Amino acid sequence: MDRDIKRANLKNIAVVLNEPRYPENIGAAARCCKNMGIDRLVCVKPRLLDKEKMLKMATHESAELIENLEVFDSLKECLEKFNMVIGTTARTGRQRRPTDTPRSIAKDIVRISQENKVALLFGSEKFGLTNDDLKLCHRLVTIPTAEFSSINLAQSVMILCYEIFVATSSIKTPCPKIASVKELEGMYEHLKEACLAIGFINPENPDYWMNNIRRLFARIELRSKEVRVIRGFCRQILWAVKNKPTRKEN
Amino acid sequence: MDRDIKRANLKNIAVVLNEPRYPENIGAAARCCKNMGIDRLVCVKPRLLDKEKMLKMATHESAELIENLEVFDSLKECLEKFNMVIGTTARTGRQRRPTDTPRSIAKDIVRISQENKVALLFGSEKFGLTNDDLKLCHRLVTIPTAEFSSINLAQSVMILCYEIFVATSSIKTPCPKIASVKELEGMYEHLKEACLAIGFINPENPDYWMNNIRRLFARIELRSKEVRVIRGFCRQILWAVKNKPTRKEN
Repeated sequence: MDRDIKRANLKNIAVVLNEPRYPENIGAAARCCKNMGIDRLVCVKPRLLDKEKMLKMATHESAELIENLEVFDSLKECLEKFNMVIGTTARTGRQRRPTDTPRSIAKDIVRISQENKVALLFGSEKFGLTNDDLKLCHRLVTIPTAEFSSINLAQSVMILCYEIFVATSSIKTPCPKIASVKELEGMYEHLKEACLAIGFINPENPDYWMNNIRRLFARIELRSKEVRVIRGFCRQILWAVKNKPTRKEN
Repeated sequence: MDRDIKRANLKNIAVVLNEPRYPENIGAAARCCKNMGIDRLVCVKPRLLDKEKMLKMATHESAELIENLEVFDSLKECLEKFNMVIGTTARTGRQRRPTDTPRSIAKDIVRISQENKVALLFGSEKFGLTNDDLKLCHRLVTIPTAEFSSINLAQSVMILCYEIFVATSSIKTPCPKIASVKELEGMYEHLKEACLAIGFINPENPDYWMNNIRRLFARIELRSKEVRVIRGFCRQILWAVKNKPTRKEN
């Protein structure tokens, strides 16, 4: 669908998982990164690096992110070479710092990352980022949720990466060629003729029904090809009514 | 952060998983739904309903969605009471139907769901939705991705639900009542009969043309009253072909 859109590069962006507890989440995060064009995955003090479990969730296509997984013992050391750290926090009200949404920050991240190394920092499944961790962040992001705000770690990674990927271009749904008014009017005439031939509309006042039909079709943004199909249908009705030998006239 | 925003209600929206293979994904999908304010989860022909595995991924807070999980044997039957079916497909190029992005369709879904039952339909982890499944869909959504387009099932659920939740904060337009899938399927049967009677479609392969007709009508969000008008039109075609005395048989 959007293979041909020219997109900004995300090569300077890394997902950093701080003290992740479950290798499945690391693997799932790798798959999210790969889906969304981010190639660098980093773990700080992971509780367990079970490669088999990570690879299972990453799937074959994202295995390289697991093979190239960078592992650090200290968050501060890990972040030293980044120019911008984006911290993710749930909506707890604990911290007073203003937070962005993934939507509101995504374009900034893409823009900044063109010339700078950006870390997307996620806390552990159980505790999130601590106040000390948050101090290392330039900006904070909170994913909007309903009442239940605790999002699975890999799901949080996905939402932020997805917003960033979408922001790499302003995707426009391609719009197909719509039938001209001339084509439409020809079609409505043809439809009226067919409706009259089968006795579907009142010959005294055909326009009353035709207006309903117009309103209905106006909603579709009919394409030229579809207008031709509908006219073929009308032609066939007229032919069938005229030619079909059914029973002898009385 | 956004506790005070007045948001549109999502009570008429259900996530429908068709033939899910892994109970973990059902549980993870339940958690996503709960995060994003969607309360109804439906499975059609799940391969395995391991409650323990589902609940583990759902977490305690989303357990009610698993307790209330609706299970069906047939997709068609499951969808009958919905007024709008949104199908999710990966970017395969198999089908030619135009697809929306989650971003471009989210507001429509919220608006329509205020007065209509909406199903967000997801195919199995392995195969996605088949062409027959897609026929039941009014509109299709493809999540934009980088080269690697295969997104984990629960992650796909999350992205679509997240976009819908984000869109709830900005909805005002009312939406009329749309025809149910059951009404639509009855109409398509009737249309097929009429098209065959007038020789408009090839009796050897009626479904080929019917697919074009389905695609066209799927775009309109037909209302119940309009479905009745179209069926009246079909009835009249059938009557006219059968009864009109035109000329003597040779």
